[in-house]
Amino acid sequence: MINVAIMGHGVVGSGVAEILIFHPDRMEKSVKTPVNVKYILDLRDFDDLPYSDKFIKDFNIILQDDEVKVVAEVMGGVNPAYDFVKRCLLAGKSVVTSNKELVAVKGAELIRIAKEKNVNFLFEASVGGGIPVLRPMVQCLAANEITEISGILNGTTNYILNKMIVDNMDFASALKLAGEKGYAEKDPTADIEGHDACRKICILAALAFGKHVYPDQVKTEGITDITLEDMEAADAFGCVIKLIGHAKKLPGGKITATVRPTLVSRDHILSGVNGVFNAIFITGDQTGDVMFYGKGAGKEATASAVVADMLDCIKHLNARKYLDWEDGVADYVDNQNDQPQRFFIRLCSKELSAPTQEVKTLFGNSCFVKNEDRGEILLLTDPQPESEINRKAEALRAYGEVKILHTML
Amino acid sequence: MINVAIMGHGVVGSGVAEILIFHPDRMEKSVKTPVNVKYILDLRDFDDLPYSDKFIKDFNIILQDDEVKVVAEVMGGVNPAYDFVKRCLLAGKSVVTSNKELVAVKGAELIRIAKEKNVNFLFEASVGGGIPVLRPMVQCLAANEITEISGILNGTTNYILNKMIVDNMDFASALKLAGEKGYAEKDPTADIEGHDACRKICILAALAFGKHVYPDQVKTEGITDITLEDMEAADAFGCVIKLIGHAKKLPGGKITATVRPTLVSRDHILSGVNGVFNAIFITGDQTGDVMFYGKGAGKEATASAVVADMLDCIKHLNARKYLDWEDGVADYVDNQNDQPQRFFIRLCSKELSAPTQEVKTLFGNSCFVKNEDRGEILLLTDPQPESEINRKAEALRAYGEVKILHTML
Repeated sequence: MINVAIMGHGVVGSGVAEILIFHPDRMEKSVKTPVNVKYILDLRDFDDLPYSDKFIKDFNIILQDDEVKVVAEVMGGVNPAYDFVKRCLLAGKSVVTSNKELVAVKGAELIRIAKEKNVNFLFEASVGGGIPVLRPMVQCLAANEITEISGILNGTTNYILNKMIVDNMDFASALKLAGEKGYAEKDPTADIEGHDACRKICILAALAFGKHVYPDQVKTEGITDITLEDMEAADAFGCVIKLIGHAKKLPGGKITATVRPTLVSRDHILSGVNGVFNAIFITGDQTGDVMFYGKGAGKEATASAVVADMLDCIKHLNARKYLDWEDGVADYVDNQNDQPQRFFIRLCSKELSAPTQEVKTLFGNSCFVKNEDRGEILLLTDPQPESEINRKAEALRAYGEVKILHTML
Repeated sequence: MINVAIMGHGVVGSGVAEILIFHPDRMEKSVKTPVNVKYILDLRDFDDLPYSDKFIKDFNIILQDDEVKVVAEVMGGVNPAYDFVKRCLLAGKSVVTSNKELVAVKGAELIRIAKEKNVNFLFEASVGGGIPVLRPMVQCLAANEITEISGILNGTTNYILNKMIVDNMDFASALKLAGEKGYAEKDPTADIEGHDACRKICILAALAFGKHVYPDQVKTEGITDITLEDMEAADAFGCVIKLIGHAKKLPGGKITATVRPTLVSRDHILSGVNGVFNAIFITGDQTGDVMFYGKGAGKEATASAVVADMLDCIKHLNARKYLDWEDGVADYVDNQNDQPQRFFIRLCSKELSAPTQEVKTLFGNSCFVKNEDRGEILLLTDPQPESEINRKAEALRAYGEVKILHTML
């Protein structure tokens, strides 16, 4: 029998407890020995559960019990999760977490400690909820060099954008509906401003490229400025707008890492990822493009990923899983690299003949649409450096409001 | 240093050799020791390669060399692959294969031998080429019960169907183009008749549900009868036609397993899987729906999956990976189970008023479209047992030709 502990009994934590306690047969089938939840750490009281006897309020009980070999951290936030996880690892326990903030901020350090102590620190559930993605990525990496990652990493924003596209709902109404459906939190800032997606692209990039990427190194833009008019304009070029977390290797060893609203062609498989679903699209030099798709959140999905990691720790109690990255460095992420890309530009102006002439002069044969009724010019540029786009857009600002969006084209 | 051998130097085999020999750094990074290709077995001569010295023609050299710990079988076909693989496993060597026919026909037996000998038998590349799917499935399974699998499992047929949908090309022309592009073999029977997809759904179902499924237990239909008119008719209901390998748990412990052209809604993520890409869509009781997408074939993609398996074997030289299923039984697959489903029916008839009346009588309020110009009635039925559909369709045959297709609706 193997003893484990769960720290936190919120949405995910209670899901983990329920799978482990109510499906003992699955656990035993997987690891060939019974798995016993010895403690559940939570400051609140849970008196009416079939497993109320397992609750404790003092972290030290877990820390000092040598029988507890694997601990799941499902409290969320950096504090006190960071302290608890670190001390568990130092005490020789394997730790599993669904806490993306913790991994994005402290991942490299915690992995290093796990390595020194010859235990495992796994966090499949921190990206993509129940979608197996980190483990297959490590697997892919064995024979591949991963060169680029593009992901729909946040279910709330994807739900909102999807409602705007399909039901012609404006941003505020779609956000309200997401709240009513339980897809958006009371304070939706972390989702709609892109912070949640940012943490996830940090983790993916670190794993794929081998060096820690810190959240503040990622150029992050949310979806609050996206309007129905933008959606319709994107549609004119056969595209939808998605919040895309993106990371790419640059020649010379640096990388780019961004989160921003991005035009995705309707022919691209990512454009079909609707509702609260997430998807991670990875390019490897050998496998070509692969994509992992599923529910990015939700109690059962996330809990099942945490449990799968716990079982993997149990199978590898005396062996390290090869999951690894180094500390990050200050100038590793270079978002000013200025490689040529295609951009989407929307210019609103009452008078269109002068700006049309200007657009032709500035952008030559780039694909463009003039919409007299609405007073707008829509432009899909040829690949050009971002600095050049910004310079040209500045010239257009003389005629009216200019909006620039990135594209995956 | 670990010694390995490769049996077969065709498309996949040469890819495996190239990754192992030309990227030694990746291998060493993954398994922390150099990986040496000691032998390559092939009856042909390869005199001009940088690694020509490794070729042998006698299988016994590999079998009798105790230094060879891991063997990749990439010859294809059941014979002599089955004999070679079995003898390698019995000699205590781990074996990796990309050979779906071998696994679909002999998987249960080879897994049992591997278990007895405490070595590994892995075959990630046998389904979905370079897409990591079997390993994530096993991982998912740890905390989930998988209830249903739907896959686009064959790139050739998906390319052909896609050309029909997008470019309005008829079946024969699309097949010819696939041949010219190298996406269809000289004899495309195994692809277009569904045999290849059948082997893959056997493997997926065996892994997901725990019992071997033999190819002749799967109800298999190819795409040779699908016409442009069918495609257009499907489009009238917002659907595309895809060749879907499907397996599902039934109440009572049996399963269904089929390969057939199927209507997929344009809202379903599988409908966006285009060209030679493959995708496997899995439903679990905890994770909900997940999908794995990528290139289902191709030298580099498949070879990289074989190499990843070889590296996994090296990491687990003295430990069994928990990949397992039992022998199959005669009545385990029940395709006559008659659970209600929605069907697509297309009736061609010069005169439409009498059959319209009949359709209304037989199918009540099911969704239907009358197309006077073309002389056809298109019908999307309410969920009904297949036996009932067949009985009703029989009545319609009095008026003209009737085509029935399954749906994922």
